Amino acid sequence: MELHGGNIYKLKREKGLEVLDYSANINPMGLSDRLKEEIGKNLSVLEKYPDPDYLEMKEAIAKHNKVEVENIIVGNGATEIMFLYAKNLKPKKVLIISPTFAEYERALKTVNCEIDYFQLKEEEDFILNIPKLKKTLEDSYDLLVVCNPNNPTGKFIDKVILDDLALTCKDKGISILLDEAFIEFVDGSMDRSLVEYKHKNVFIVRALTKFFAIPGLRLGYGITFDEELKGKIEGNREPWSVNAIAELATKVLLEDSEYIKKSEMWIKEEKKFMYHELEKIKGIKPYITETNFILVKLMTGMKVDEFRKKMITLGVLVRDASNFNYLDDKYFRLAIKDRINNIKVLRCVEDAIK
Amino acid sequence: MELHGGNIYKLKREKGLEVLDYSANINPMGLSDRLKEEIGKNLSVLEKYPDPDYLEMKEAIAKHNKVEVENIIVGNGATEIMFLYAKNLKPKKVLIISPTFAEYERALKTVNCEIDYFQLKEEEDFILNIPKLKKTLEDSYDLLVVCNPNNPTGKFIDKVILDDLALTCKDKGISILLDEAFIEFVDGSMDRSLVEYKHKNVFIVRALTKFFAIPGLRLGYGITFDEELKGKIEGNREPWSVNAIAELATKVLLEDSEYIKKSEMWIKEEKKFMYHELEKIKGIKPYITETNFILVKLMTGMKVDEFRKKMITLGVLVRDASNFNYLDDKYFRLAIKDRINNIKVLRCVEDAIK
Repeated sequence: MELHGGNIYKLKREKGLEVLDYSANINPMGLSDRLKEEIGKNLSVLEKYPDPDYLEMKEAIAKHNKVEVENIIVGNGATEIMFLYAKNLKPKKVLIISPTFAEYERALKTVNCEIDYFQLKEEEDFILNIPKLKKTLEDSYDLLVVCNPNNPTGKFIDKVILDDLALTCKDKGISILLDEAFIEFVDGSMDRSLVEYKHKNVFIVRALTKFFAIPGLRLGYGITFDEELKGKIEGNREPWSVNAIAELATKVLLEDSEYIKKSEMWIKEEKKFMYHELEKIKGIKPYITETNFILVKLMTGMKVDEFRKKMITLGVLVRDASNFNYLDDKYFRLAIKDRINNIKVLRCVEDAIK
Repeated sequence: MELHGGNIYKLKREKGLEVLDYSANINPMGLSDRLKEEIGKNLSVLEKYPDPDYLEMKEAIAKHNKVEVENIIVGNGATEIMFLYAKNLKPKKVLIISPTFAEYERALKTVNCEIDYFQLKEEEDFILNIPKLKKTLEDSYDLLVVCNPNNPTGKFIDKVILDDLALTCKDKGISILLDEAFIEFVDGSMDRSLVEYKHKNVFIVRALTKFFAIPGLRLGYGITFDEELKGKIEGNREPWSVNAIAELATKVLLEDSEYIKKSEMWIKEEKKFMYHELEKIKGIKPYITETNFILVKLMTGMKVDEFRKKMITLGVLVRDASNFNYLDDKYFRLAIKDRINNIKVLRCVEDAIK
């Protein structure tokens, strides 16, 4: 069982198969033409060490988020940011809203904290039950982990709700790790982020990976309004962890308004299309999504392992979601890509479920 | 005071200066043409996550070192490898041969161990006094750190000597962290490495950064024959820490025999030239080097800070070496580059020392 989606390499090595990868949630528009051009023109950036202060890169990110350079931490993917946060916050007792992305737990386990889970219930369509969460939040927790929109459920919590939750947490001395790695795919995009409230107890994680289709480049960042924590993280980290092409790409991509606009239009249409088409297929239940992937339940008694294998023989790799906490062998996750491939995949799902 | 050389960015930001960077030790041949071509043709690797197992990359490295894939750990620069090693070995008491590269200490401090130093003496021309080291090596140490060739002194310890030291350490239950990041610049290159002895207690760190002029790409690796330690490191690490261009570059560069041969010929000539020309300049003392940088002492009473500033006004950035352990404000380090620039820099040194 893979911890993450997307191990197309193993599939190719072991079975010789080339598949349509619907297990990794990447913008199907692919690399922006502007970025390709800029990398081609600037390969010599590789011959120098990156700026150890990553100042221009941070300026581009700060501008994009309407915050200050001092609020930005850059990382070798969002993963490095999470591990740095865990290492420097050193929480003792953590509550993770779950099922969710597995790396929070992995990052937090490196600092040996106690981990509890707040379950998103299937009977509540995996929507976060905030009143119940608030009752569960004891003072003994020092960290709450929220993924928004949540992976793998695709649900999004509105910023005014999260703002209120952040204030409750503040009163109880609880920090929040808020992963917004998929926020660009939500209708309204960055305007829906909690960043504008500038909560000192909320650490926001972002990535350019998914929206700009650069998972191979490793490019993430954190936003914090806690100066002390920021100082600790910067003082404790490995130097030059962000490569020079990622440094260059940040500046190029965040200003590529054409790519951003086109992508926003695509996902707005396509998430509705995918949900409605999946709903029509008998034997499965899709959960409404606000982002670029969708959680689906097998209702025929077929197990996800069998379903996944069938899909592979049909040429499509889906994400077996049974190893997410609180999900079982009936769940899979599908990426949402371009219309032509989505239609192909929908036909394959229909065939595989028969 | 900078912890490392090469902050040309700060210099440019604060003073508007573009300088010849002799503070970072990078092969002046620059990016290999084959690599440029391959990156240009394969930018789409950025659109996928890297292989989480990095299998092809490890195969290329294993072949290059005549070891097995199982012996290789890849990292986001040698820095990540060092931090991973420290985190997973968790030594209690460490001896660092010093003056040396500052990152060992930084990496080891993250695991709160006791750190002692074994001093390379100026009166011994900074050559490692092995008999004395052996006497110093108490059983209470669990790790010895050796940089070979050593940064900033440029001295190299022959593999038969290191083999003997490794055996002594093995008897005492001491591990060795052996940084061979600059070994390709030593006459004889990889044949001079300790790797062939396959010591279980020796962890070797390498980087493609310096020799292949790709410090912006972040590409390092570790070689270990300790299965248990290997398992711990791989189990504990962040996924996808190596970007997809670095993954691609490894395969391309390690087979670029033309680039390798040309570089070996250049450095063989140029390190001799640089030493002999520096020797002719009055008021400084260069130390014979076996690699692509050279340590120099100011003998006129001028302080390195003043010297460095003078050099900047002449258009050259040198590495103030006074913050290396056991060095003081009389030392600087110079990279060795191509003949035309080396001659320019030699003239500047002459002018600055007057």
